[in-house]
Amino acid sequence: MESKVEQDLGSYNHHPCVEIGMEIHKVETPPKRSSLRKLGNRLKETFFPDDPLRQFKGQSTKQKWLLGFQYIFPMLQWGPHYNLNLLKSDIVSGLTIASLAIPQGISYAKLANLPPIVGLYSSFVPPLIYAVLGSSKDLAVGPVSIPSLLMGSMLRQEVSPTQDPVLFLQLAFTSTFFAGLFQASLGFLRLGFIIDFLSKATLIGFMAGAAIIVSLQQLKALLGITHFTKEMGLVPVMSSVFHNTKEWSWQTILMGFCFLVFLLVARHISIKKPKLFWVSAGAPLLSVILSTLIVFAFKAQHHGISVIGKLEQGLNPPSWNMLHFHGSHLGLVLKTGLITGIISLTEGIAVGRTFAALKNYQVDGNKEMIAIGVMNVVGSTTSCYITTGAFSRSAVNHNAGAKTAVSNIIMAVTVMVTLLFLMPLFQYTPNLVLGAIIVTAVIGLIDIPAAYQIWKVDKFDFVVMLCAFFGVIFISVQEGLALAVGISIFKMVLQMTRPKTAVLGNIPGTDIFRNKHQYKDAVSVPGFLILSIQAPINFANSSYLNDRILRWIQDYEEEEEDTKRHSGLRFVVLDLAAVSAIDTNGVTFIQELRRVLEKKGVELALVDPVGEVMEKLQKADGTQNLLQPNTLFLTVGEAVSSLFSSMKSVSSSQV
Amino acid sequence: MESKVEQDLGSYNHHPCVEIGMEIHKVETPPKRSSLRKLGNRLKETFFPDDPLRQFKGQSTKQKWLLGFQYIFPMLQWGPHYNLNLLKSDIVSGLTIASLAIPQGISYAKLANLPPIVGLYSSFVPPLIYAVLGSSKDLAVGPVSIPSLLMGSMLRQEVSPTQDPVLFLQLAFTSTFFAGLFQASLGFLRLGFIIDFLSKATLIGFMAGAAIIVSLQQLKALLGITHFTKEMGLVPVMSSVFHNTKEWSWQTILMGFCFLVFLLVARHISIKKPKLFWVSAGAPLLSVILSTLIVFAFKAQHHGISVIGKLEQGLNPPSWNMLHFHGSHLGLVLKTGLITGIISLTEGIAVGRTFAALKNYQVDGNKEMIAIGVMNVVGSTTSCYITTGAFSRSAVNHNAGAKTAVSNIIMAVTVMVTLLFLMPLFQYTPNLVLGAIIVTAVIGLIDIPAAYQIWKVDKFDFVVMLCAFFGVIFISVQEGLALAVGISIFKMVLQMTRPKTAVLGNIPGTDIFRNKHQYKDAVSVPGFLILSIQAPINFANSSYLNDRILRWIQDYEEEEEDTKRHSGLRFVVLDLAAVSAIDTNGVTFIQELRRVLEKKGVELALVDPVGEVMEKLQKADGTQNLLQPNTLFLTVGEAVSSLFSSMKSVSSSQV
Repeated sequence: MESKVEQDLGSYNHHPCVEIGMEIHKVETPPKRSSLRKLGNRLKETFFPDDPLRQFKGQSTKQKWLLGFQYIFPMLQWGPHYNLNLLKSDIVSGLTIASLAIPQGISYAKLANLPPIVGLYSSFVPPLIYAVLGSSKDLAVGPVSIPSLLMGSMLRQEVSPTQDPVLFLQLAFTSTFFAGLFQASLGFLRLGFIIDFLSKATLIGFMAGAAIIVSLQQLKALLGITHFTKEMGLVPVMSSVFHNTKEWSWQTILMGFCFLVFLLVARHISIKKPKLFWVSAGAPLLSVILSTLIVFAFKAQHHGISVIGKLEQGLNPPSWNMLHFHGSHLGLVLKTGLITGIISLTEGIAVGRTFAALKNYQVDGNKEMIAIGVMNVVGSTTSCYITTGAFSRSAVNHNAGAKTAVSNIIMAVTVMVTLLFLMPLFQYTPNLVLGAIIVTAVIGLIDIPAAYQIWKVDKFDFVVMLCAFFGVIFISVQEGLALAVGISIFKMVLQMTRPKTAVLGNIPGTDIFRNKHQYKDAVSVPGFLILSIQAPINFANSSYLNDRILRWIQDYEEEEEDTKRHSGLRFVVLDLAAVSAIDTNGVTFIQELRRVLEKKGVELALVDPVGEVMEKLQKADGTQNLLQPNTLFLTVGEAVSSLFSSMKSVSSSQV
Repeated sequence: MESKVEQDLGSYNHHPCVEIGMEIHKVETPPKRSSLRKLGNRLKETFFPDDPLRQFKGQSTKQKWLLGFQYIFPMLQWGPHYNLNLLKSDIVSGLTIASLAIPQGISYAKLANLPPIVGLYSSFVPPLIYAVLGSSKDLAVGPVSIPSLLMGSMLRQEVSPTQDPVLFLQLAFTSTFFAGLFQASLGFLRLGFIIDFLSKATLIGFMAGAAIIVSLQQLKALLGITHFTKEMGLVPVMSSVFHNTKEWSWQTILMGFCFLVFLLVARHISIKKPKLFWVSAGAPLLSVILSTLIVFAFKAQHHGISVIGKLEQGLNPPSWNMLHFHGSHLGLVLKTGLITGIISLTEGIAVGRTFAALKNYQVDGNKEMIAIGVMNVVGSTTSCYITTGAFSRSAVNHNAGAKTAVSNIIMAVTVMVTLLFLMPLFQYTPNLVLGAIIVTAVIGLIDIPAAYQIWKVDKFDFVVMLCAFFGVIFISVQEGLALAVGISIFKMVLQMTRPKTAVLGNIPGTDIFRNKHQYKDAVSVPGFLILSIQAPINFANSSYLNDRILRWIQDYEEEEEDTKRHSGLRFVVLDLAAVSAIDTNGVTFIQELRRVLEKKGVELALVDPVGEVMEKLQKADGTQNLLQPNTLFLTVGEAVSSLFSSMKSVSSSQV
């Protein structure tokens, strides 16, 4: 038997990695800090990862006040340097987005089952507020499609917008108030990371699904159907469309089709040549004017073409007396506020970040949330419903050369002029053109290349995307979204309960150890099982890890049997470099593993524990001596080298 | 400027780590596998981490059948080798636990607001079933305190056990049925990891809280109060106790106090000297006999001491006709079944694993779940309520030398004899002695040393423990538990959204790079910012990581300013060794980071991505060239060495 051992050890000698007498380095513990200090650090990392107070460091008191005001009102940062050249650019871009904002505002308000004029009100006050508080230079603020759809459909569950329009309007304003309150609180409490839970995959699926739902709703206007379903799903809408073929109006269909094609072509041109941004930017307003003239000239409203009808004139009336903070609909209003608030925040922040990255400036997420939230709270008291930074209009704004938030002010002023003087002109605007404008706007939300990219990179993310997409189309907008978020989080938790473990091998000619599955050249060292654990060890995974490690040991033993080599397992080396944290269950797991291995005559060595893990193992280590110099190493190479020489010296003394 | 660069580079030359011309190794991709194969592997790791089919590999068909039967009925494994010696040990231990099981069964049934005899029924049928199906050799099966308390208190929310005892009993059996069904399904579907979400900290806090709640309930019996509150919380119970001081009976208090002291002393003796296990094991039965004799002799039932009263004689009557699968209480029954099922499963599995570890055999969690589940389903049809492996009785069983599950059979037979012939003897047993037995049993659930250990090792776990404890005491048993589980999972998700990043430095004299905070000797390399990310990169953390890395860069620049060194940042090296997974958001984050850094004139290099990360980066990498040999390295040392020499050659060609 002894000669057998010697023979085995003989074969070890030729092992490439073993460099006996390799210098061994100590694993160190991070400097001691009190629990309170650690807690403080943790809280800072959680809530202030961007360290917003950094700029105040080492400044004079006066300077600090100035910086503080600039922090709250970003306008003060760029205001003093504002000049005529910037103003020229901003006027051009402001007028461009106004020509988009007016028809879109009217259209989106209809999507939310609100009077069209509310859409214009919402394009007047919120942009002014954002111009003062917001930190993005490109964001064009106003009503957007998906939150409009969501608010309309959620409120319609309890109140009918046709039978009880005043109550419906009150609920819409109250929801907007809560949405704004919620958004601003997220920013104040620095909980902005909540919107991170909407992953890219979720958003792409959700947006595409919502775009289809929104487009389907436009069939009412585009086909001229009067008895349209009140539901949103694909199935009820299609059955409603084909059960009401008698109501289809050929005049509406023809005219709608023409304008839709015109708008789509204009959009296509601008996509191909971004310099021609004004083609797609001007097309909706042109369509509105053209279609209104046609209706007016041919008295088409008497030939089956439905029109907007008379609109009030004048600026936003106050609406704080319309906010309802009690009564039976409070739950609904809170829920609607929460969901539309999150969704519009997500769109606003994402759009802001996208354009900030293009122009190489920073947008502070938490600050943006406060700006958008305040804008909605104020909006809800001035007859505005939910608004945020719109993707399509911001893109036009950016392409039209907007330099600062002044373009929002120009847009607001244009809308104001419209509200004051031009409202009667919209009387004969046909609904079909609004439908065509919405379809053209939301079709851009369907991002096939991004979906293909997700399919290529990550199949699971693709499944999440499909869930969001089909959930929105077949169940409901909010439930589809919840489903996708739920699945994403479930995957994350599952990943935590089933962390990866890998067997490491030596890369010949080096002291580097890597995953044997990934590096085909890597060879194992006889007598050693080297495992790397790639996740925090905690209550959710410690019993899995125990099972899994015992299985790796069985695998090792079977492999030895197969190769007729019987050197036997002497050491299990755990590479803890990737274990970023550990809890009491995890500490117990390591202690237990050591005990179980000891009974089998196998020694456990730990490699490269990070600071926190090291500290906790030390604290838990009473009489166990888990962290002896001969079982704790800085690198796998040093562990193998040191343990190997100790094994040799033992066996030679046996011989 | 150029001479400045050269001067800086001059100082680099003396840098200890730089060993120009160091051999560079390639990062490899794992062998290609189809998505389906990967999915299969993932599913296997998730549901079969213990690889239960391993033992069937390479066996003959006959052998496979035999192994299969043995897998389902573990009794077949040890049955053939059973002998007289083993039987002797099992008889001793079986009789010992029976002497505990009889008084505890009666007591726990009262805790669940059920007739005392149901506790004895539940100590007869379930142990017999467990003996056939269970794989633990030490588990003593029967009713236990916390699930009894939970079932009693949850069902009492809707049905009064005194006013409607038959319906209450029906609901208890139906809950037991669902609990068993749920437990067995968890095992069949291999979802056993669900109980892992009850962390050690949660359980210790929960058990201690529940022990106090259970003990408080015993004040009714121990003080002789007749009008006792029906609530469980600390506050209502204490106010009920002190508002009914007139009902206190000094005879009851005196007698209860004596027996409580006697039982606690007996318990203390057995803890100090485990060989004297029979002292605490026999004490409850002795107390029952003594107290019954005292009551009988002094006719104490007429002096304010309440007694159990007449009990039926005979074995378990069938109860399948008492199961209710419809009606208004179905929701309650399902919820009760679910919660008591999980809790009793947790206790059973934990106890089984503890003793298996002591005797060095394995207990298969999923198999145990099926065994416990089947036992409860069958139990619910034979007048038994929820049962599991009890901690205190299993400990006695183990100390008494139990060798196999036959000790459970011996216990069941003893209970059967009691049911058939000895029931009239319990007529005069005072309730106070049952209260004293319960208090003595549950006091062992309060584990102060373990709580102290948690405080020492992990402050956050301690907070979780306190939440469970105070939640149970002040809110309710089930809500306290839910609170603690919720906080544990929240911590896990928060950990995921705020992964650790660390700046690495070179350990002098080596090519090893480690966290500069932990290793005070580690020095940074001028021009390099070396960061390690220690978590999967995904939707929940990619925008945080972006913020955090930009802050590290700012820190670097500030430090340079402070030290008046202006070599400037040239390279950001990301050590991805600890990034075990990545999703589409994570891939975008790395691509964006590279783009942002490029604009600053800084190059991004990646080190040691694991297989999955490597694959996804490759797939996403269209024209970006993220994975060029000059930006992808196997170790940080090689990255620094290689990039450093490229920087030198560039700057010398500039000069």
